[in-house]
Amino acid sequence: MKLVRYGRPGKEKPGLFDEEGRLRDLSGVVADIDASVLSDKALRKLARIDYKTLPLVRGNPRLGVPLHGVGKFIGIGLNYADHAAETGATPPTEPIVFMKAISCLSGPDDPVMLPQGAKKTDWEVELGVVIGTRAQYVSEDDALDYVAGYCVVNDVSERSFQLERGPQWDKGKGCDTFGPVGPWLVTRDEVIDVQRLDLYLELNGKRMQTGSTETMIFSVAQIVSYLSRFMTLEPGDIIATGTPPGVGVARSPQRFLKKGDTLRLGIAGLGEQQQDVIAYAKS
Amino acid sequence: MKLVRYGRPGKEKPGLFDEEGRLRDLSGVVADIDASVLSDKALRKLARIDYKTLPLVRGNPRLGVPLHGVGKFIGIGLNYADHAAETGATPPTEPIVFMKAISCLSGPDDPVMLPQGAKKTDWEVELGVVIGTRAQYVSEDDALDYVAGYCVVNDVSERSFQLERGPQWDKGKGCDTFGPVGPWLVTRDEVIDVQRLDLYLELNGKRMQTGSTETMIFSVAQIVSYLSRFMTLEPGDIIATGTPPGVGVARSPQRFLKKGDTLRLGIAGLGEQQQDVIAYAKS
Repeated sequence: MKLVRYGRPGKEKPGLFDEEGRLRDLSGVVADIDASVLSDKALRKLARIDYKTLPLVRGNPRLGVPLHGVGKFIGIGLNYADHAAETGATPPTEPIVFMKAISCLSGPDDPVMLPQGAKKTDWEVELGVVIGTRAQYVSEDDALDYVAGYCVVNDVSERSFQLERGPQWDKGKGCDTFGPVGPWLVTRDEVIDVQRLDLYLELNGKRMQTGSTETMIFSVAQIVSYLSRFMTLEPGDIIATGTPPGVGVARSPQRFLKKGDTLRLGIAGLGEQQQDVIAYAKS
Repeated sequence: MKLVRYGRPGKEKPGLFDEEGRLRDLSGVVADIDASVLSDKALRKLARIDYKTLPLVRGNPRLGVPLHGVGKFIGIGLNYADHAAETGATPPTEPIVFMKAISCLSGPDDPVMLPQGAKKTDWEVELGVVIGTRAQYVSEDDALDYVAGYCVVNDVSERSFQLERGPQWDKGKGCDTFGPVGPWLVTRDEVIDVQRLDLYLELNGKRMQTGSTETMIFSVAQIVSYLSRFMTLEPGDIIATGTPPGVGVARSPQRFLKKGDTLRLGIAGLGEQQQDVIAYAKS
């Protein structure tokens, strides 16, 4: 299933995209796409619904983050061999873990705002993993059983805040709008091999990132198992699993986001995001 | 006011401690202590209640985290001049920001569990700041107006995960039970000078940490203002503002937590926590 939440910010309703790519309303079936519908059992129940009985949604509404009630938004750093190489960093011997503030979550096509004082705001297309079942000390073999599904994440990062304002990255990872997620939460059963997904990102129509989850240093299963030894993973937690080559900070010359830029990014089978880059505006 | 949540984990009810130190039930007045009651206006409304009309709670129930729906649990590193000195670190020129996973939150007297593979689990008594009003780019002069109140936090940290498993601290800061908060959320009006609060921590009855918020490098107002330039602070966010001297990793010889240890820690006017240290148990 391709689960979504659609409507105005804070007022989103649950929905799904059917086989013909039409948006249908799920609000008669579930109150929201949240922890309560992410378990295997709950997802199986949803999958049994005859889509044709669900009302079609008119028009082309805004999409929000495809799940509500995200508890943790965890990031993995330098997880692609080819990206680690381009940054000149030594490939990590175990996953690098940081956290994105949940206040940075935004819809897949919402604008990305440049924080005040930003100088080096950068893009990172990433595979997002959504936890479906509470995970504590799970093995690599079992790890994917705890995953509800996958989504596209743009792990937007202000490099000057991340790397030049002290030793900890979180400062440059969680600015408002730095976490576009979606368009869809694609349930696990629809992803045949999570380690063979193509990712891409374009800036103003020009290809910047091209990669595949094949070159991950730590696989999704390894990451889920690893994290579950440091913290309980809860249904609705999102893990951004690292980015392939082509980020702005690693280019020569470097290229960072400017007001008026447009990003388009996606992952095969998981849909596409598009963001306009704008100045910060308080909400 | 001294707001609390009492009862079994996940089933807590809102309450308050009255002037005589008696626990009274607030569940007839508010559904919970959460973002909806943390604004100045909502707190003023609560303060107008005649405590005597609130039912007394019998017995001595468990206390939970004194607020529900924490979105972000932010930590500030090396923020006491005397603690920075004891670790041998250069005092930071701006706040070091990290994040504690919200799944680590626990009640003030709940046990602290040693994660599997833990070798250097350490204590850190800290002043916790609870945001009451959404804050974006607020000035230092105005910053405290966005604070609902204060609480005791034990920023429990596994040093081997934090410092020896890669460059980012979050891995050793958010393990389950590493975030005892409470007993009370003391509203801002009851704290005359937040930069003159004594903090202490005892291990098995022996004093380990003694400090005062006077020696903070960055004041609470500076921290709130600073963070609000990197992310929107939302009602219910908690900021742990750093620890005074006396942590285990900085002692000679070093001393870390062992099964059977007992911690007692507190801050003048904000109450006291007590935790037994136990082995990890899945929940």
